[in-house]
Amino acid sequence: MTRVVLRIDFDDERYIGHGRIELLEYIDEFGSIAKAAKAMGMSYKRAWYLAESINSTFKEPVVTRQHGGKGGGSAGLTALGKTVVKEYRAMEAGVLKTYAKSLKTMEKALGPKKQFQA
Amino acid sequence: MTRVVLRIDFDDERYIGHGRIELLEYIDEFGSIAKAAKAMGMSYKRAWYLAESINSTFKEPVVTRQHGGKGGGSAGLTALGKTVVKEYRAMEAGVLKTYAKSLKTMEKALGPKKQFQA
Repeated sequence: MTRVVLRIDFDDERYIGHGRIELLEYIDEFGSIAKAAKAMGMSYKRAWYLAESINSTFKEPVVTRQHGGKGGGSAGLTALGKTVVKEYRAMEAGVLKTYAKSLKTMEKALGPKKQFQA
Repeated sequence: MTRVVLRIDFDDERYIGHGRIELLEYIDEFGSIAKAAKAMGMSYKRAWYLAESINSTFKEPVVTRQHGGKGGGSAGLTALGKTVVKEYRAMEAGVLKTYAKSLKTMEKALGPKKQFQA
């Protein structure tokens, strides 16, 4: 099943891509950066850093955090965070629909599935 | 200037992304894998491997090569190769146009340009 993955490059240092959107969705779902990190198979530190990077991309926070104890506190998305996720997913779904014919043309030309052999 | 970069994942091992398309375009332009590699700042070996990977994705070749001497011979795109590049670039341009409003919404929420500071 063909997927089209988007990366939106606002400029040479600020972007939103598939991994960042997935992290935001998990934070929204679990209310926790630690749990979102676990779901994505990444370290808490990496998820925290990513959340900070996404926050610093926009003029308002996308991820909010309440500091807690050893459990790491809770986290969630702001209205802006939810908008960014929604717009991204709408674009992704729209692209698949709009370019179904182009994708079909390419799919028809695909060879058998195999590992590349040098 | 916002750009939307696409990666088309046909399945878990076969994909077409921005770097691959750019390599195909340079091969088409220069008629040489060595020159295309140089234009992209990658080694000849890496470009050659990428071209092989793209070829093995499809049932017909996308890149053709004529072996030469020390210069490395010449290379070019097949009709399929040109179609893949054309469809990809059309999708990319179409996405920017179709989602101009969504992108504008996100652009308006961007913060000042800066390096992320921990």
